[in-house]
Amino acid sequence: ADTEATSGAEERNGQLTKPPGALGRLEDLAIWYAGWRGTPRPEIRSPQVIVFAGNHGVTAQGVSAFPPEVTVQMVMNFQHGGAAINQLAKLAGARMDVHALELDRPTADFTQAPAMSPDELLAAVQTGWKAVDPQADLLVVGEMGIGNTTPAAALACVLFGGDAGDWTGRGTGVDDAGLVNKTRVVAEGVARHSGDIQDGLDALARLGGREIAAMAGAIAAARVLRIPVILDGFICTAAAACLARSADGALDHCVAGHQSAEGAHSTLLSALGKEPMLSLGLRLGEGSGAALAIQVLKGAIACHSGMATFAEAGVSDG
Amino acid sequence: ADTEATSGAEERNGQLTKPPGALGRLEDLAIWYAGWRGTPRPEIRSPQVIVFAGNHGVTAQGVSAFPPEVTVQMVMNFQHGGAAINQLAKLAGARMDVHALELDRPTADFTQAPAMSPDELLAAVQTGWKAVDPQADLLVVGEMGIGNTTPAAALACVLFGGDAGDWTGRGTGVDDAGLVNKTRVVAEGVARHSGDIQDGLDALARLGGREIAAMAGAIAAARVLRIPVILDGFICTAAAACLARSADGALDHCVAGHQSAEGAHSTLLSALGKEPMLSLGLRLGEGSGAALAIQVLKGAIACHSGMATFAEAGVSDG
Repeated sequence: ADTEATSGAEERNGQLTKPPGALGRLEDLAIWYAGWRGTPRPEIRSPQVIVFAGNHGVTAQGVSAFPPEVTVQMVMNFQHGGAAINQLAKLAGARMDVHALELDRPTADFTQAPAMSPDELLAAVQTGWKAVDPQADLLVVGEMGIGNTTPAAALACVLFGGDAGDWTGRGTGVDDAGLVNKTRVVAEGVARHSGDIQDGLDALARLGGREIAAMAGAIAAARVLRIPVILDGFICTAAAACLARSADGALDHCVAGHQSAEGAHSTLLSALGKEPMLSLGLRLGEGSGAALAIQVLKGAIACHSGMATFAEAGVSDG
Repeated sequence: ADTEATSGAEERNGQLTKPPGALGRLEDLAIWYAGWRGTPRPEIRSPQVIVFAGNHGVTAQGVSAFPPEVTVQMVMNFQHGGAAINQLAKLAGARMDVHALELDRPTADFTQAPAMSPDELLAAVQTGWKAVDPQADLLVVGEMGIGNTTPAAALACVLFGGDAGDWTGRGTGVDDAGLVNKTRVVAEGVARHSGDIQDGLDALARLGGREIAAMAGAIAAARVLRIPVILDGFICTAAAACLARSADGALDHCVAGHQSAEGAHSTLLSALGKEPMLSLGLRLGEGSGAALAIQVLKGAIACHSGMATFAEAGVSDG
């Protein structure tokens, strides 16, 4: 972040017509955003929401409550404007793009083989990188991929340790027996691949998925472009975690938009040192929680950049 | 609320293209809003934010970090568009009104006498009642009044019991000695008046303030007009609590917009059975936390009323 812009934003924050600290977290968010945008009085004019979709060979293990064809059906729904993320992106005034990554060619079942080859990983990361609009001033990345809480749990487990059960949840709604099976699948994947995983990219290739790799690529591109990112739920955060484990400070341009109802999401956010902006029990993915959080960040920036100072308003500052 | 609209909204919610419950609290909020608006597929088109301002005789006891003239200065700031609430109301597309209630005639110091006479209370409640636009489809009431966390604490204490220290906080930022003094003032007010307080209106007159009474009047009017209300912080919630203690279910048309950093606010919300939508450490008043929460409610309604159903989108519903 730009230290001059950060200092300028801190100074401005101290002069606004409110008691010191009275806007709480909104003040921190505005200063963080100003630093990444390189101006002490920023605006949010061009947010971008990108939804990446992928299919997962591991669904052969019965890890989801929904059939894999729902991925492509939901991509159609995104394209026709009918999904939750369409409504939330529109409300936020955000451009929305959808990238379906080879849905007819699912990743390999990671209990049997690496999910992706190095070339497949690279292609997916590049799709994500190139999807970011360099003119965007805020980015949300979301995902659709039936079965993808399973690779997300496997990634979190291999990156941060602990048992498969610590990271495995009900996703879109598997029952008790489904949860036991899903936990077994995560444990098998981690056991099979952990010896070959040295960093976040190895983890992404062996246990991830195309849409997860694309999210990581987009988040990395945003850092280079100085575009702040609002992280979504468990799967998005798992993608981000692969970057964090590959380079220190790789997520400094990211804030956590919300805490998902998927149980392990709060553990994952804590491991990354990120405090969620919202906690409303969402567990949909698609970027929905992060898109909702755009509304809060817009409030923070509206106050920071729009309020009068004590001197301008002729108000006594205590 | 309209049970037919509520049932219709619940039915629609079950058909939308998402796993059951995946939008968490947004689903409950949309159904609640639909019930009060009397339609299963509502929109938010005309939110209203009203800021009431009043002055408090109890400031003579040194309970605030800011001098009382700041109330009128901030009213000017509201009228010129420079305060936080102006930015947040604008962002929410809300009409904003400001009502200054006899700022040159503060209430009486409640350690010495009732804050207001019955006639003064009635005038203030009527100002609030009449301020509500019958065409509004969502209401936020906020306040400005140097010293007004002190009457709010006294109201909470007399309505819900406990010690003055349980309900007294730092407001806009009194120091340790200031907090001790403020707690003494609250305790003296409660001790002086509690024997004469039978219901919420008695409490409002003896320990409240004009802007607090006006907020209560506006919240009550909104119920009659079937306008849902988002409650703001500690002072707004104390005003609402006076209604709750006067009639069962008086706050069924209200949701809690946020949990303030003022310590006793969470206790007060729990006493009213209200769960806050946001918890971002705000403690500004003016309606700021509730106006920010409009953004979240808009997200809930955008999803509920804008999403495609499984049948419309041709998506398999698991």
